[in-house]
Amino acid sequence: MQELTGLRFKRLLLTGAAGTLGRMLRPRLKRYCETLRVSDLAAMEPAGDGEEVVIAPLEDEAAMLALLEGVDAVLHFGGVSVEKPFSTVLPANIVGAYNLYEAARRQGTRRIVFASSNHVTGFYGQGETILANVVPRPDSFYGLSKAFGENLAQYYFDRHGLETVSIRIGSCLPEPQDRRHLASWLSHDDMERLLVAALSAPVVGHSIVYGCSDNRTTWWDNAQGRHVGYRPQDSSEPWRAQLEAKQPHIDPTRPEARYQGGVFVTQGPFPFAGQPGGEGA
Amino acid sequence: MQELTGLRFKRLLLTGAAGTLGRMLRPRLKRYCETLRVSDLAAMEPAGDGEEVVIAPLEDEAAMLALLEGVDAVLHFGGVSVEKPFSTVLPANIVGAYNLYEAARRQGTRRIVFASSNHVTGFYGQGETILANVVPRPDSFYGLSKAFGENLAQYYFDRHGLETVSIRIGSCLPEPQDRRHLASWLSHDDMERLLVAALSAPVVGHSIVYGCSDNRTTWWDNAQGRHVGYRPQDSSEPWRAQLEAKQPHIDPTRPEARYQGGVFVTQGPFPFAGQPGGEGA
Amino acid sequence: MQELTGLRFKRLLLTGAAGTLGRMLRPRLKRYCETLRVSDLAAMEPAGDGEEVVIAPLEDEAAMLALLEGVDAVLHFGGVSVEKPFSTVLPANIVGAYNLYEAARRQGTRRIVFASSNHVTGFYGQGETILANVVPRPDSFYGLSKAFGENLAQYYFDRHGLETVSIRIGSCLPEPQDRRHLASWLSHDDMERLLVAALSAPVVGHSIVYGCSDNRTTWWDNAQGRHVGYRPQDSSEPWRAQLEAKQPHIDPTRPEARYQGGVFVTQGPFPFAGQPGGEGA
Amino acid sequence: MQELTGLRFKRLLLTGAAGTLGRMLRPRLKRYCETLRVSDLAAMEPAGDGEEVVIAPLEDEAAMLALLEGVDAVLHFGGVSVEKPFSTVLPANIVGAYNLYEAARRQGTRRIVFASSNHVTGFYGQGETILANVVPRPDSFYGLSKAFGENLAQYYFDRHGLETVSIRIGSCLPEPQDRRHLASWLSHDDMERLLVAALSAPVVGHSIVYGCSDNRTTWWDNAQGRHVGYRPQDSSEPWRAQLEAKQPHIDPTRPEARYQGGVFVTQGPFPFAGQPGGEGA
Amino acid sequence: MQELTGLRFKRLLLTGAAGTLGRMLRPRLKRYCETLRVSDLAAMEPAGDGEEVVIAPLEDEAAMLALLEGVDAVLHFGGVSVEKPFSTVLPANIVGAYNLYEAARRQGTRRIVFASSNHVTGFYGQGETILANVVPRPDSFYGLSKAFGENLAQYYFDRHGLETVSIRIGSCLPEPQDRRHLASWLSHDDMERLLVAALSAPVVGHSIVYGCSDNRTTWWDNAQGRHVGYRPQDSSEPWRAQLEAKQPHIDPTRPEARYQGGVFVTQGPFPFAGQPGGEGA
Amino acid sequence: MQELTGLRFKRLLLTGAAGTLGRMLRPRLKRYCETLRVSDLAAMEPAGDGEEVVIAPLEDEAAMLALLEGVDAVLHFGGVSVEKPFSTVLPANIVGAYNLYEAARRQGTRRIVFASSNHVTGFYGQGETILANVVPRPDSFYGLSKAFGENLAQYYFDRHGLETVSIRIGSCLPEPQDRRHLASWLSHDDMERLLVAALSAPVVGHSIVYGCSDNRTTWWDNAQGRHVGYRPQDSSEPWRAQLEAKQPHIDPTRPEARYQGGVFVTQGPFPFAGQPGGEGA
Repeated sequence: MQELTGLRFKRLLLTGAAGTLGRMLRPRLKRYCETLRVSDLAAMEPAGDGEEVVIAPLEDEAAMLALLEGVDAVLHFGGVSVEKPFSTVLPANIVGAYNLYEAARRQGTRRIVFASSNHVTGFYGQGETILANVVPRPDSFYGLSKAFGENLAQYYFDRHGLETVSIRIGSCLPEPQDRRHLASWLSHDDMERLLVAALSAPVVGHSIVYGCSDNRTTWWDNAQGRHVGYRPQDSSEPWRAQLEAKQPHIDPTRPEARYQGGVFVTQGPFPFAGQPGGEGA
Repeated sequence: MQELTGLRFKRLLLTGAAGTLGRMLRPRLKRYCETLRVSDLAAMEPAGDGEEVVIAPLEDEAAMLALLEGVDAVLHFGGVSVEKPFSTVLPANIVGAYNLYEAARRQGTRRIVFASSNHVTGFYGQGETILANVVPRPDSFYGLSKAFGENLAQYYFDRHGLETVSIRIGSCLPEPQDRRHLASWLSHDDMERLLVAALSAPVVGHSIVYGCSDNRTTWWDNAQGRHVGYRPQDSSEPWRAQLEAKQPHIDPTRPEARYQGGVFVTQGPFPFAGQPGGEGA
Repeated sequence: MQELTGLRFKRLLLTGAAGTLGRMLRPRLKRYCETLRVSDLAAMEPAGDGEEVVIAPLEDEAAMLALLEGVDAVLHFGGVSVEKPFSTVLPANIVGAYNLYEAARRQGTRRIVFASSNHVTGFYGQGETILANVVPRPDSFYGLSKAFGENLAQYYFDRHGLETVSIRIGSCLPEPQDRRHLASWLSHDDMERLLVAALSAPVVGHSIVYGCSDNRTTWWDNAQGRHVGYRPQDSSEPWRAQLEAKQPHIDPTRPEARYQGGVFVTQGPFPFAGQPGGEGA
Repeated sequence: MQELTGLRFKRLLLTGAAGTLGRMLRPRLKRYCETLRVSDLAAMEPAGDGEEVVIAPLEDEAAMLALLEGVDAVLHFGGVSVEKPFSTVLPANIVGAYNLYEAARRQGTRRIVFASSNHVTGFYGQGETILANVVPRPDSFYGLSKAFGENLAQYYFDRHGLETVSIRIGSCLPEPQDRRHLASWLSHDDMERLLVAALSAPVVGHSIVYGCSDNRTTWWDNAQGRHVGYRPQDSSEPWRAQLEAKQPHIDPTRPEARYQGGVFVTQGPFPFAGQPGGEGA
Repeated sequence: MQELTGLRFKRLLLTGAAGTLGRMLRPRLKRYCETLRVSDLAAMEPAGDGEEVVIAPLEDEAAMLALLEGVDAVLHFGGVSVEKPFSTVLPANIVGAYNLYEAARRQGTRRIVFASSNHVTGFYGQGETILANVVPRPDSFYGLSKAFGENLAQYYFDRHGLETVSIRIGSCLPEPQDRRHLASWLSHDDMERLLVAALSAPVVGHSIVYGCSDNRTTWWDNAQGRHVGYRPQDSSEPWRAQLEAKQPHIDPTRPEARYQGGVFVTQGPFPFAGQPGGEGA
Repeated sequence: MQELTGLRFKRLLLTGAAGTLGRMLRPRLKRYCETLRVSDLAAMEPAGDGEEVVIAPLEDEAAMLALLEGVDAVLHFGGVSVEKPFSTVLPANIVGAYNLYEAARRQGTRRIVFASSNHVTGFYGQGETILANVVPRPDSFYGLSKAFGENLAQYYFDRHGLETVSIRIGSCLPEPQDRRHLASWLSHDDMERLLVAALSAPVVGHSIVYGCSDNRTTWWDNAQGRHVGYRPQDSSEPWRAQLEAKQPHIDPTRPEARYQGGVFVTQGPFPFAGQPGGEGA
């Protein structure tokens, strides 16, 4: 894929660089900056040309302050990205998000692209289409922590002028794996398109955009975020027939089918006792 | 056109199979099911391979109950499809719709694709764009009966869990015939795309989608129904110059031009005494 | 209660005059007209001074045409007012409503006040507040027939200029009887206020107003219908403590508690298999 | 009426002080300021205690600049207040409004209460209720000039920080005179309440509020302007029976009845050729 | 004040009982239950008749689980209620809220009334009126923690069926103290009315209501929460003249005047660098 | 570019024909009419085949009346198109617009395509996406005059049935020149597409459409104007990398970056003292 912008940032920071998405994004982001600083808890590939590799736990306030030094903009992919007990989600995604934003404020960072999640609104139904300004209906502790991050981003913009694009990522995978992904899939190239748009738009305040490809089926309408300039180019359509053939029967009364969040809505050591949402209204 | 889904239904039912749309759809739908049951009041082509042909008046409760036996999903195109006296519309479209839904409920059918009509909202103006959740403004007894069908569908979903996609069909014809069709045209291929989307979406509750092609001019915005996954591929544009040349003068103060419903708004043995609607607001 | 308007209609028609509401309204309406024509299927009190009593089944087209002769405005309370099989609801509430409107059109009647029902939207939740322009979610065949009547009213206004105020009546009783009525109660005096407002407003097109008193708890917001001029003066509040003491335990997961329609949502010879709606969204 | 605020402004300016409303307001406003400056084109009552009387045509830029010197806040009632040819409305209401705002900006005035008019939205129907943020539908050159004034106010706030409350005045009269006034009437006391609220609210930006009393019937919903703190105490209701008796017949198809603007919509030397608006939608 | 409901709960829990609001509420709540359990970190008044006093830090998971045993409904007023460093807000308001909800779920508690705050939306302007479903714009770490609590409540309802009314409390004080309170004041009696309404409404899902009295000036519109049944009876109006006289000059360009959150928007050891919000739009 | 419609108007009038846009449009429009009348204050190219050239100042009422004789439809590009003192904008854009509409009404012209401007809403933020029905926030006297023109158009439709499409033109240039143009650019070909759509749509009432190409980044959503039938085919994307490289640093706190109107918001002989708008909300 050709370069998507004429901008070249002095130093971008990618957190969560050891994760699956982080590893995919690292070489892609390198092209848009002089220096790419990557960080994570865990060991990463050694620094290549124009790279800086830092081990920095999100929970460590001092480490985060140091990490943000000299950073123009952050792509915050660090933290827990699946459902976990609250005690696990809390330090990584809540304390960690606070540490990141506070460090960014103190270091004068201008913008954060926040890897939020569709699980912020996972309790809306698969039978409805929503805009980004709906009331959050998180489907998990994970989704709850991402809703916290979005509110934090709004606060840091309103109070401190620090801008954020919150991306409610769908299913970012090389290929869609099941029928839910026909709606939620975000290709790797479209992820790059979205990140570059979020970094290069001159003014964003705090904007929220769903991260999905140009799938024929979707639950999300980004009409309110056109100023961010994201235009997906990929689609889950080529996988449709094959995935539908593989998974012909879906029971629409099961929670994981009824809700956009899929299996997230039933995870954890307790039975599902919630209420189906506003489909059909 | 290639097959649009990897799903293959065990038995689909197409009502109204002797009608113009029914005859067009019959061979197209065959591809998506093991058995296609087709029904109508009138004689139809004899059953081909994998087909079942049933004469069943919509008004006949017992016949409808038998008709729905073993059916996975219905494409309900039966009934009156033009303006008629109320006494004609009533048995076919109101009693008939009830009989169909009640039979479907009793037989355990999971989904109905209901051929509703743009005439449910025909009294909105040609100078405005509407969403599918506007208050109905039917333009005829026919439109009124389709509005009834949509409410019936909502009830059967809310009360009995039976899902429906109501399609407010525009002008489904081989080619657009006049300037109104530049906005309202639905190509045969796009109709197939829409039906397959409505059948294959895993969860739909009761969803309403306007059935028109990707025409440059339109009065309808399907933003609230993206989860159904309909993406038209055709357009009335190639016929534009020719139709405009053929019909150069349109008086925008005449009811049939002012309203989306076109000539439906003035049909019947009484003069038009209504009020122009919210254009320009 | 003193008279609520300086208008005096030449002839008002009250249908359903033998019903509970009809009998309550008959003496109240007499004050606002020179002649009050009352009609029903069944025997009624003999005509008093300035009254005309007519036996006229709603299903009888010719009888309805005669009934509407010389009528300025109608208060249409006739038909079935509880849940019944569709075959019972159909002639009374669907055919009957058509006969009434068509007769009114032919006789030049200017306005109809239509006794619609909260059961048009009975599948909205008791945990949410709705406006009158929401998508109908009828909870019964009865509610479905009232939704039909509203659409019919819209059509006769758009097409023929015949105006209607549709009143989605809550629970019109001398006193609230249970905790649901704390929200849905409409006092007899407030009913009179609402009918007189609907008759006397100079311009109404087709307007929809919920019919409830000024109850502290409510599910309905009439903000879009202020032009009708209804201002309730009564409240269910004086009965609150007593009704709450009488019915202390309500299980919010039972359909009749979850939905505004109350027991209507579970009536009929089939189990409830529907889906709870958008509460909490 | 007792004083409505504990604030006492140093100097208020009332323009249009020779007009009907101006004369009514002059003694009322005096109580809320040390000095009340009043201005008009025409002769006014001589200055009383704490008053300053200035002849200053709105079209005279220099005179307006002088007029605004030392003024804390303005109540702008000057200009044409009925329908007139555009050539008459232009200098008084368009040039005049510009001169006032530009003078206020240069003199450091902090707030303007702008006497706008319901005729900014006079082409909405009497059969609908509107919010203050609807698209303007002016019914006259007069209404058009008031729409200009509102946009000017928005501009001077956005660009220069000068705050305005635009009041879309209904029918401000000692008593309602006809049935339209049952909806549109604004009592003199309520006018004072509204002006004092608009002057004393700490922050208003540019806010728009309809100026009507707490009438049972209304076409306007001030829900979006509660921060201004206007609570009407009067009502047209006591005059209802008498006005309805006096004017029993209203033809809802006549433009002056259909539209909120009343006779304004048909004034001028040309026939009415417009289109009835969104009633009944 | 007389008792506001005929319901009598078996056991209510009031957290934060040692705080200012907690002490005010304790005797009021006693009337609505057989047993009132009160808890806090700090020492409280000894248990009176029908009371249980428990020292239980919100951060202590085991203590919270024990605290919730046998509780029908909770009034959650515990935690930090002013702006504090994030490290202080986190354990009390974020971890504490989680512990409360998780304990409630495990113990089968049916409903929580959550003392949220207007500071969840404190960055909206004092020159605008908002509904409860706007996107959160917290003005402080405190406000951020309350936004978290609301999302947590939504999650526990959607996932576990545990109902909450979130009350965005304004300024709950014996009397309004400054001009901001003219809009934000919530009297003690109205607080009781709101809590009782929130406890006694049969179905609430997760509903959000602003907690303010019936003040003439307000920034908040509870139209979407009428089903909760809160009707304030008090008003800040009697204090208006006196407070306006005491504080005659307010600079609308200062952040604490521009924003609904007042001084909260400028607290903390850093200068205000945010952006004024949507006033005047 | 091929001809975009089969319609051929008898006589079109293009005002402002000596301006930059006028000169570009003149040969393009010629193809759609038998006679193209062009007008301006200043000298123009002499009349070609099928052309009529008229010098007619917009301020000259009599000249305008003559100019409109025999005209089917107008493309009104005349007047001031950059920020100027109010005294310059007034005659050209306010008096001039009135003269044009009044002349059109008297001459029986059926439709006007009005060159409005994005500066009608220039005080919305570059960090938000708006629909065409938002409350105007003009950024200049120029923008204010265009807002006046739109209201005038609405009035002439509502009162006289004269239709208008108001086009809020972005940056109509051969190529985008700076990063703001990446969002606001309208190619010459897309301008032609938009004008032809506005002329050929059978019914438009008064419709408002933003005039921009299919740019990846945009601030404007034309969802409410699909009935006009504008589908842009060009995009600013090919210029992106080059413009971003040329203008790498944008300070989002400067008014000209924060607001959609760009430098218009700071023009004039006075400092910017306004308030940043609703970004991030």
